[in-house]
Amino acid sequence: MPPEPTLQRLPWYLAYVSQLRSLHVENVSSTQISRHLSVDSSQIAKDLSFLNIRGKTRIGYDVAELEVTLRDFLGFGRSHRAVMIGVGSLGAALIQDSGLTRYGLDIVAGFDIDLKKVRAHSGRPVPVFDASTMAEHVKRLGAEIGVIAVPADQAQAVADQAVQAGIKALWNFSPLRLKARPDIVIQDTHIYSHLALMYNRLDSQRLNPQQP
Amino acid sequence: MPPEPTLQRLPWYLAYVSQLRSLHVENVSSTQISRHLSVDSSQIAKDLSFLNIRGKTRIGYDVAELEVTLRDFLGFGRSHRAVMIGVGSLGAALIQDSGLTRYGLDIVAGFDIDLKKVRAHSGRPVPVFDASTMAEHVKRLGAEIGVIAVPADQAQAVADQAVQAGIKALWNFSPLRLKARPDIVIQDTHIYSHLALMYNRLDSQRLNPQQP
Repeated sequence: MPPEPTLQRLPWYLAYVSQLRSLHVENVSSTQISRHLSVDSSQIAKDLSFLNIRGKTRIGYDVAELEVTLRDFLGFGRSHRAVMIGVGSLGAALIQDSGLTRYGLDIVAGFDIDLKKVRAHSGRPVPVFDASTMAEHVKRLGAEIGVIAVPADQAQAVADQAVQAGIKALWNFSPLRLKARPDIVIQDTHIYSHLALMYNRLDSQRLNPQQP
Repeated sequence: MPPEPTLQRLPWYLAYVSQLRSLHVENVSSTQISRHLSVDSSQIAKDLSFLNIRGKTRIGYDVAELEVTLRDFLGFGRSHRAVMIGVGSLGAALIQDSGLTRYGLDIVAGFDIDLKKVRAHSGRPVPVFDASTMAEHVKRLGAEIGVIAVPADQAQAVADQAVQAGIKALWNFSPLRLKARPDIVIQDTHIYSHLALMYNRLDSQRLNPQQP
């Protein structure tokens, strides 16, 4: 597995080459990518060395090939079956986000403890079930990823329940730090922490203004 | 401004003390926080030293006071006016997420280039305007944060437009790396990169299983 910073940058390259492909550009050099994304070109060569692709001298990479290779490498080309745990505002929102499907996340069911939400959503393309039936549905649907979108005080309990049900990876949107067995993958997306970072940087920019 | 890892951990402490407060617990020591969150207790003391709060020997921190202090320090207690740029599936979803309001983000308007979306959403509590009118509305509404939720190929253009309109911080949900003047705060939340990380860790877990 490549280092995390590489895995963070590869999607930038993918977004860029997808734009190039839609503009019918055929080849791209790491110098071009470097200039467009302000990433050092030797870093780009190093990042792309993890992929099974070779650029040609003076021509660079084939755009279409690079796009497909990046997409496959990042796992966006394959479908990963997931369940949404918690269909409150954020959970319901993420179920509606068609971007996730395009990036390989196939949300096949939702769970909630609130029976009103279960009833409100169950007619949708993604069925919502009572959380107590998680084990049965996760197995039946062959889901391997559990997206945690419940309030902090319920997050650990539903994570435990999901692992019990056979979930292999937890994508955690709650602000809580989850604990699980070492064989369980935990991916945190603490969007509210990002807000705190942004607010603090706005404040320090106000106190010590950088020149525009 | 405290270092980024501190700002990432403070919301964990906040989530924990909020739970304690709702359970009517009055005091908490850094040892307890440490045990609950698996963060080194000297690290916790160091993180909390950025706040204007003192624990008492043998008693620890006052839970209610620590909660308020953390919330204020992180900026969650104040309202920050923001506009949503792009009301596609993700943008519309984030507008609906009441969690953001609780964490101090007040989305006062949305913008889109698709007039159908403008019409569909404009009756909602959050009005949606044509993107070409951004400058006028941003000023009128006094918004300082622009949330970028457009496809990658439009992200840089709308970011430029937002900065022109007077936006001070960009919260970027697009997979693109944005460029802006040095006085503009850019906060990336690349949720699709997080997916790539999770997929890769799932794959390597499959190839080299950790013991459960």
